[in-house]
Amino acid sequence: MITLYYTAHTCSLASHIALEDAGAEYDLRRIDFASTEQQSPEFLKINPKARVPAMMTPRGILTETPAMLAFIAQSYPDAGLAPLDDPFAFAEIQSFNSYLCSSLHVSHAHRMRGHRWATEESSFEDMRRMVPETVAAGFELIETTMFKGPWVMGDAYTIADPYLFTIAQWMERDGVDPDRFPKVADHRARMAERANVKAVLEVELAP
Amino acid sequence: MITLYYTAHTCSLASHIALEDAGAEYDLRRIDFASTEQQSPEFLKINPKARVPAMMTPRGILTETPAMLAFIAQSYPDAGLAPLDDPFAFAEIQSFNSYLCSSLHVSHAHRMRGHRWATEESSFEDMRRMVPETVAAGFELIETTMFKGPWVMGDAYTIADPYLFTIAQWMERDGVDPDRFPKVADHRARMAERANVKAVLEVELAP
Repeated sequence: MITLYYTAHTCSLASHIALEDAGAEYDLRRIDFASTEQQSPEFLKINPKARVPAMMTPRGILTETPAMLAFIAQSYPDAGLAPLDDPFAFAEIQSFNSYLCSSLHVSHAHRMRGHRWATEESSFEDMRRMVPETVAAGFELIETTMFKGPWVMGDAYTIADPYLFTIAQWMERDGVDPDRFPKVADHRARMAERANVKAVLEVELAP
Repeated sequence: MITLYYTAHTCSLASHIALEDAGAEYDLRRIDFASTEQQSPEFLKINPKARVPAMMTPRGILTETPAMLAFIAQSYPDAGLAPLDDPFAFAEIQSFNSYLCSSLHVSHAHRMRGHRWATEESSFEDMRRMVPETVAAGFELIETTMFKGPWVMGDAYTIADPYLFTIAQWMERDGVDPDRFPKVADHRARMAERANVKAVLEVELAP
């Protein structure tokens, strides 16, 4: 059995949706950022990075969204969430997800998490001012060079879709107008209509 | 045939070593950062991200080191560079490589690339001051919780090894004393003795 450690409004949403898409049996464990539970001794034993998502599996813990999404796709091959027998097509998904993780999410993080990389309030303000521009540049690259449509990778829904949906949730708070990116905005709207996504959001956003 | 677009002293070294480890046939194309060739119209057609590494394959372009390393491992299975039939063990490699890409490399980038996330010289100075601490924290996490030894993932050499070696090249310039991390330092020294690594560095560092 898999246990997913998650927090609402974070990137753990991507793995949560993918577990539903895979038809996996899993437990959920909410980590309360308000009480900094992610830094508690109990959670640090599970994930010394003090972050979500983390996923306990029968073999041990996994972290990092691109790795967890690929693990879900490979562990539930019947769900068809990635082209597992095609190294190039699989790598295109990995490349997309790695871009979300290491560039777009990082740009976003400079709005609220500037303390990871600097100490002065003036630096945090400087970083926050630039977030609308850097996040928009990331979505521009996706809109114009990566997104194939109707799903991220083309005709087939893959593990890239819940991840893009997750990051796209943050556009407005990052000061980015979704109307500038019609393909991404349309994808977000179609994702939000999927039964699995609705069910997952209902669980995550429950009080 | 694969063509690897690379620049010395960048993370493209990881894929370059992995291509040698795989016994792949490949061409090399050096991108000259000194003349900002990565932003030239010709290179932007290859990689609109204006970064290295990029890898042209018969099916199209791939970018992002974790994706490229997994592609190399899957495309040359006889080289045994990843446990391809074990989703959990494969995910552990992906998780490690994703951490290098999205956390440790990002910490490092705040020394020279602060302009990606801020505009003021005072912010760049603030970021640079914190790099020794954030990069050391990343290596501390690797040393104490991730590195299995003698190779990153244990007895088997995998695609995680050239990537750790690559990032570990930058420790001194990031203000981090390698002696603080004996497992990582020993790994770096053993990697530097490998014939493939020596051959790759000789090519990359040639005038």
